[in-house]
Amino acid sequence: MTTRPTTCSIGRAMDLLGERWTMLILREAFWGVRRFTELQRNLGIARNILSARLQALVAAGILERRLYHEEPERYEYVLTQKGRDLYPAIVAIMRWGDKHLSEGQAPPLVLRHSCGGDAAPHLACAHCGEPVDPRDITPEPGGVASLA
Amino acid sequence: MTTRPTTCSIGRAMDLLGERWTMLILREAFWGVRRFTELQRNLGIARNILSARLQALVAAGILERRLYHEEPERYEYVLTQKGRDLYPAIVAIMRWGDKHLSEGQAPPLVLRHSCGGDAAPHLACAHCGEPVDPRDITPEPGGVASLA
Repeated sequence: MTTRPTTCSIGRAMDLLGERWTMLILREAFWGVRRFTELQRNLGIARNILSARLQALVAAGILERRLYHEEPERYEYVLTQKGRDLYPAIVAIMRWGDKHLSEGQAPPLVLRHSCGGDAAPHLACAHCGEPVDPRDITPEPGGVASLA
Repeated sequence: MTTRPTTCSIGRAMDLLGERWTMLILREAFWGVRRFTELQRNLGIARNILSARLQALVAAGILERRLYHEEPERYEYVLTQKGRDLYPAIVAIMRWGDKHLSEGQAPPLVLRHSCGGDAAPHLACAHCGEPVDPRDITPEPGGVASLA
């Protein structure tokens, strides 16, 4: 048996992200949607639930609440750097859903890259640039000494 | 306002994956852990919850239940292709947690690629091979006609 790290980045991340509405709010944020009423309309979500999810995302530092109108006071919700860094996770989840949960239909969205091509993003190794396959990866202890 | 696809791969995926234990079970599966008792020990999860999560993952076609011992009957849980295809999502979530939820500590794990380098996997464009930044991506309607 392999001892696990006492800390796990997946567990900690899922504590924040593991909720359908949270990921859909982030999807909207990546589409450029910033306002409560627009989020509510696009998602068909109850106001109190949307409000609670936005507060949690602001508290987690994933969204930032910004005043955009003084009287009456109106706020919008903007991705922070921490939030923008969730893009690979959201894209990976979307592409998995496209492939495995679409019941034979074409993907709802195509991600067009600035190079002109269909980005169809994949994981690549930072060292050699090749696509990463789980069979080619060996997890090794990082800087945390608790991993046996 | 942009009309959303009536189907959303993120929403459908989160209905399956949006649960802390589910992602941790998949983490274990990618580490090669296949057996109930070992999963239970590694995760410190209640038997009834683990049992329910495994059943859901099997029903979703993400894990396959295989008999590995006849008397007494013993089963193990193995990733299907659909399950293996979750690797980019799990890695992306892990790397985000490493960067943003580790409170300044080094990542618990490093992913060593077969090329010898630290894979530090990033999202790359299938067309040009360059790293994908959300600012360089334009979502376009795919094959579903309901996107305005």
